[in-house]
Amino acid sequence: MGGNTFGKIFTITSFGESHGEAIGVVIDGCIAGMQVDLNLIQKDLNRRKPGQSKITSNRNEADEFEIISGVFEGKTLGSPITVLVKNKDQNSADYDNLKDIYRPSHADYTYHKKYGIRDYRGGGRQSARETIARVIAGAFAKMILNGAGIKVQAYVSQVYNIKVDPNYKNLWLDQTETNNVRCPDPNIAALMIAAIEVAKATGDSLGGIVTCVCSNMPIGLGEPVFDKLHADLGKAMLSINAVKGFEIGDGFGSVLKKGSEHNDAFVKKNEKTGTLTNNSGGIQGGISNGEDVYFNVAFKPVATIFKQQQTVNTSNESVKFNAAGRHDPCVLPRAVPIVEAMAAIVLADHYLRNEMYKIKP
Amino acid sequence: MGGNTFGKIFTITSFGESHGEAIGVVIDGCIAGMQVDLNLIQKDLNRRKPGQSKITSNRNEADEFEIISGVFEGKTLGSPITVLVKNKDQNSADYDNLKDIYRPSHADYTYHKKYGIRDYRGGGRQSARETIARVIAGAFAKMILNGAGIKVQAYVSQVYNIKVDPNYKNLWLDQTETNNVRCPDPNIAALMIAAIEVAKATGDSLGGIVTCVCSNMPIGLGEPVFDKLHADLGKAMLSINAVKGFEIGDGFGSVLKKGSEHNDAFVKKNEKTGTLTNNSGGIQGGISNGEDVYFNVAFKPVATIFKQQQTVNTSNESVKFNAAGRHDPCVLPRAVPIVEAMAAIVLADHYLRNEMYKIKP
Amino acid sequence: MGGNTFGKIFTITSFGESHGEAIGVVIDGCIAGMQVDLNLIQKDLNRRKPGQSKITSNRNEADEFEIISGVFEGKTLGSPITVLVKNKDQNSADYDNLKDIYRPSHADYTYHKKYGIRDYRGGGRQSARETIARVIAGAFAKMILNGAGIKVQAYVSQVYNIKVDPNYKNLWLDQTETNNVRCPDPNIAALMIAAIEVAKATGDSLGGIVTCVCSNMPIGLGEPVFDKLHADLGKAMLSINAVKGFEIGDGFGSVLKKGSEHNDAFVKKNEKTGTLTNNSGGIQGGISNGEDVYFNVAFKPVATIFKQQQTVNTSNESVKFNAAGRHDPCVLPRAVPIVEAMAAIVLADHYLRNEMYKIKP
Amino acid sequence: MGGNTFGKIFTITSFGESHGEAIGVVIDGCIAGMQVDLNLIQKDLNRRKPGQSKITSNRNEADEFEIISGVFEGKTLGSPITVLVKNKDQNSADYDNLKDIYRPSHADYTYHKKYGIRDYRGGGRQSARETIARVIAGAFAKMILNGAGIKVQAYVSQVYNIKVDPNYKNLWLDQTETNNVRCPDPNIAALMIAAIEVAKATGDSLGGIVTCVCSNMPIGLGEPVFDKLHADLGKAMLSINAVKGFEIGDGFGSVLKKGSEHNDAFVKKNEKTGTLTNNSGGIQGGISNGEDVYFNVAFKPVATIFKQQQTVNTSNESVKFNAAGRHDPCVLPRAVPIVEAMAAIVLADHYLRNEMYKIKP
Repeated sequence: MGGNTFGKIFTITSFGESHGEAIGVVIDGCIAGMQVDLNLIQKDLNRRKPGQSKITSNRNEADEFEIISGVFEGKTLGSPITVLVKNKDQNSADYDNLKDIYRPSHADYTYHKKYGIRDYRGGGRQSARETIARVIAGAFAKMILNGAGIKVQAYVSQVYNIKVDPNYKNLWLDQTETNNVRCPDPNIAALMIAAIEVAKATGDSLGGIVTCVCSNMPIGLGEPVFDKLHADLGKAMLSINAVKGFEIGDGFGSVLKKGSEHNDAFVKKNEKTGTLTNNSGGIQGGISNGEDVYFNVAFKPVATIFKQQQTVNTSNESVKFNAAGRHDPCVLPRAVPIVEAMAAIVLADHYLRNEMYKIKP
Repeated sequence: MGGNTFGKIFTITSFGESHGEAIGVVIDGCIAGMQVDLNLIQKDLNRRKPGQSKITSNRNEADEFEIISGVFEGKTLGSPITVLVKNKDQNSADYDNLKDIYRPSHADYTYHKKYGIRDYRGGGRQSARETIARVIAGAFAKMILNGAGIKVQAYVSQVYNIKVDPNYKNLWLDQTETNNVRCPDPNIAALMIAAIEVAKATGDSLGGIVTCVCSNMPIGLGEPVFDKLHADLGKAMLSINAVKGFEIGDGFGSVLKKGSEHNDAFVKKNEKTGTLTNNSGGIQGGISNGEDVYFNVAFKPVATIFKQQQTVNTSNESVKFNAAGRHDPCVLPRAVPIVEAMAAIVLADHYLRNEMYKIKP
Repeated sequence: MGGNTFGKIFTITSFGESHGEAIGVVIDGCIAGMQVDLNLIQKDLNRRKPGQSKITSNRNEADEFEIISGVFEGKTLGSPITVLVKNKDQNSADYDNLKDIYRPSHADYTYHKKYGIRDYRGGGRQSARETIARVIAGAFAKMILNGAGIKVQAYVSQVYNIKVDPNYKNLWLDQTETNNVRCPDPNIAALMIAAIEVAKATGDSLGGIVTCVCSNMPIGLGEPVFDKLHADLGKAMLSINAVKGFEIGDGFGSVLKKGSEHNDAFVKKNEKTGTLTNNSGGIQGGISNGEDVYFNVAFKPVATIFKQQQTVNTSNESVKFNAAGRHDPCVLPRAVPIVEAMAAIVLADHYLRNEMYKIKP
Repeated sequence: MGGNTFGKIFTITSFGESHGEAIGVVIDGCIAGMQVDLNLIQKDLNRRKPGQSKITSNRNEADEFEIISGVFEGKTLGSPITVLVKNKDQNSADYDNLKDIYRPSHADYTYHKKYGIRDYRGGGRQSARETIARVIAGAFAKMILNGAGIKVQAYVSQVYNIKVDPNYKNLWLDQTETNNVRCPDPNIAALMIAAIEVAKATGDSLGGIVTCVCSNMPIGLGEPVFDKLHADLGKAMLSINAVKGFEIGDGFGSVLKKGSEHNDAFVKKNEKTGTLTNNSGGIQGGISNGEDVYFNVAFKPVATIFKQQQTVNTSNESVKFNAAGRHDPCVLPRAVPIVEAMAAIVLADHYLRNEMYKIKP
């Protein structure tokens, strides 16, 4: 009930503080007998880890994982899978000055008021280091989706005011991982990197948008009222640190279309039914229709900047604050595998939920 | 598990088809001994009901509610509260032509494929008539919030390309209910109404944005990882029919700010701590910080339009479709109480969840 | 969270007070496209209803049900199924004297202290009339189980000190419904009825045991740690009014066996694997093994007796209490369909839960 | 959904296989700022661990725990608490012969059929070593209950046919921990130990009963319909390995009482209301009434015996089976802290759940 479990059949429970012993996750409800792709887990952890390029934080964590339970002779047992990543390169001393201060736009204040206590070292539980748990669980979800043929791919579509073509079909998605910013348009990528370097040099930070495309979707994922597929995707994305907005299909852009422009006409596609356009983002009434599911996720600029800021301390006295520690000037490149992971978790959960409708009465 | 229950402590279970016997809701986890404000329930149902003005559908439903359980001598018992609204003015014959057709951008196709069966009369379970359940439950949630002093107010901030000042403090929120479109700027309201009338006259439909402001917020609502307050608000909003996007605080706009522009400095406000700006939308790390919580919800244009459309039938044959029945050219005015209801439900749930942290060990 | 919902996939939400408008249930997660057997629902309601024989309460309720949602043209839609039974023959005046008194071994006191309010008419929510919701939901669960070939049958095995052969294979289970007490041994049935009549004549009440046998069980139902099949059956049974004990297989009797006497040897049964004995009650490690699942449920004697009793009033003053109203001297005959219903609900839920393990990775 | 999470507010997620890396637990929903009593955790682990006396298994595990998350400077943070116990003294080779065999009355067969795969080393996930997770979580629950003044004490009341006085008030509960069998009657304890030694010497095993008494109970714990306090206690107990039965208050014995003998009269106790007798076991209508909550839990004899047994292998061929490894001839002494732990978990969960009813509307 503390809100650290997500999913209804494929359920993940996240735990760990940034400067505690480890970050980890328990996955309950994974299918049994599935070959565990260890490379996939490490690959996604590497895509998320700090220090991977000159535009990310230089905290130096190998982020090697250990599987503690639920896997036997390389396969899932059907019992809960627990995976840990130890915290190694903590510089807790960097945070001593934070003990009595509330950093602007961080959660120091709200944690302190809610719980009466907080682990101020590296942000404790509020640290985005928690997303390691999500990336690991997401890798298991991707293994399930691979079995079903479903593909999930995210990319950086905007950094600050620099953006790619809004239609993902006009991009080079297979080039996404070839540049440090994970942008599927090499020219735009270069501009984004330059902007991030300027932000870094000036002690400032930038936000942006991650777009995610789920293709080869089955029909029928999603429950139609509260657990609409895009409602669960939205919650999943909004639960990621620094996310401020979510839109499915043409999202906020749909407001500027009339019904006659927005509706997706059904058409015969070979022997199947499909839609001519896909403004809906592959979901109607909360249920996937077989077309691509795509959505945008807005990330605010990182709260930690290296400019002096005004704030208050725990005695409600006005103080000046100067950040220390190692921080990303822009989280977008590292957010890509996190968005993919959360998308995969939602899809795997709904994929398993939908199985019961295959029982014939 | 069918996805018709929402909330963790204050839980609501919605049921009913558009042309079935009734729409209803069971509320489990409401506090006991609370005086039930019958007027509030009916008032919000009236704000939602069709036929309330010339810019809404002219289906003529009184939408009178009956309390079936959980209330005794005017007060809540602590047992589940069940409320029904009978369906009366169904013209099921209007829908006979829909039996074998998949309407564009409706959920006929996805329901049929998922379940192998559907109630095609008036959209069945996919009908927005389901939101009656939400409005009723939301009225009970508002009663709890009233006891805590929390206020939830929504309004139409945009219809098609016509929009109000983005800062709600520059609007006349107390005038929202004085015009048919529920816009807190009378001049803009007139333009919106005109646009809706044109859409109606031309058989087309319009989308828009509802903004919601939650004020007098306590500190500490929201759980910090998956059940962040804005993640639950986002899921709640995205579960409403026709919603395509959600943003908290400055949302997608945060992308165009640098960290130094976006951060909300903490300041001493009298004897309390507050923030100088509120780009965060009153939430940090998923937990309310005492400032106003505000967010935007994007609604696509209504899928039913009165222009001939291309689609397929259940045999996957190409057919022409002409809509019949009674439909809104723009759902925004009626969406306002629905957005408020879902917001109130999320806040009431988190208000009750947060109680356990008040236990001193 | 008020505890009125049960099940994880096949979920039921019960509502209603004894002298309120109606008792009802919402079933969410039923499979779609299933033909609804209306006769089965009414038959089980009739087996539960008061006034069915001279040894039950003479409250005269037809207990006719109305399906409010989730069924279309006789089949389940996959949307939530809501069923109501109106309360008709309430004599609320019989209960006026209970407004300020706490009846011995009833829940008047605990409800009042927990909620600060109670509906004293006919026991309100604590009334066993609530079990109508369970019987209706159980009928839908039985329809699912019928499709899977699983059979659930309960019977009265003991009333006070009169009991049948403990081995159900020595009984005439198909004769269970031929006598008023629902005992599958006609000679013992006559003795039980006589004992109940004496209890009734003397204003006293009797308890007893209901035994339930689930046959033609699939292998694999139940999750192995907390949601063991017998743990969920146990919770289901202990949640029925007046139940004080539950045992699976040889239960408390297992204590008097040594391991060498209790173990169930695996043997080849035709081409399948089975067990030679079935002390385990068809479940090992919380998972069904294909043998019959059988268990006992102990019901205390009815709390309402027609002898003067000592108690206190709401002012904590000592008072004499004389019961009025219409009550069963022994609930066992009417408990049989309730036990079956709860068993069916647990089995249907685990049957649907187990589907995901059929996905091949 | 794999059934490895228990509780609604105070939720525990158990993980780990007997011969895997570790057994562990994540506790989500513990109150924040609570001093962690490390001694209590280790003391209860020591009461559970093998090799503690000559009548228990001689697997030699120190069972030292490590707190991985959720505790900072000795206090709970409000974030999920993860605790691990590494597996050290595994003799996996002892189990090689089990790879292709289904041990009688073990869960080898059901696991294999359900999942298509199993970890045969030491029972894998079906091993009672999993209860380490419960004992750790139970220690945290006891810390919460200590703050509320609630006391939970269990003891062995019966081994095979040797039993103590059924009324716990006639026993020396404070002597329970002074003998190896944890029986609060020293004379009976000696007889029990003798019986276990005989069973051990003859390669056989014994079952028995653990009784648990919860005293200084608040009024109001438990939700009245499905989540009755004794229903949740029953599920908790039945989820423990080898448990076959549960009874609350006078349980199965209530069947042999008439209503006039069984009812608990309310009486004025000083300024409070109490009951003259306590046949109900401190619960009425599923809600605690302030009297002691007490219940019995039946454990079958251990399935592993050192006599040759008949069984089948994974090819469904008849084979002889001779057990190896280290096993308890009677689990009862080690079950006492497990029963206490599960009771404490249920009470802590309902204690936190009940808080919301203290909100005044």
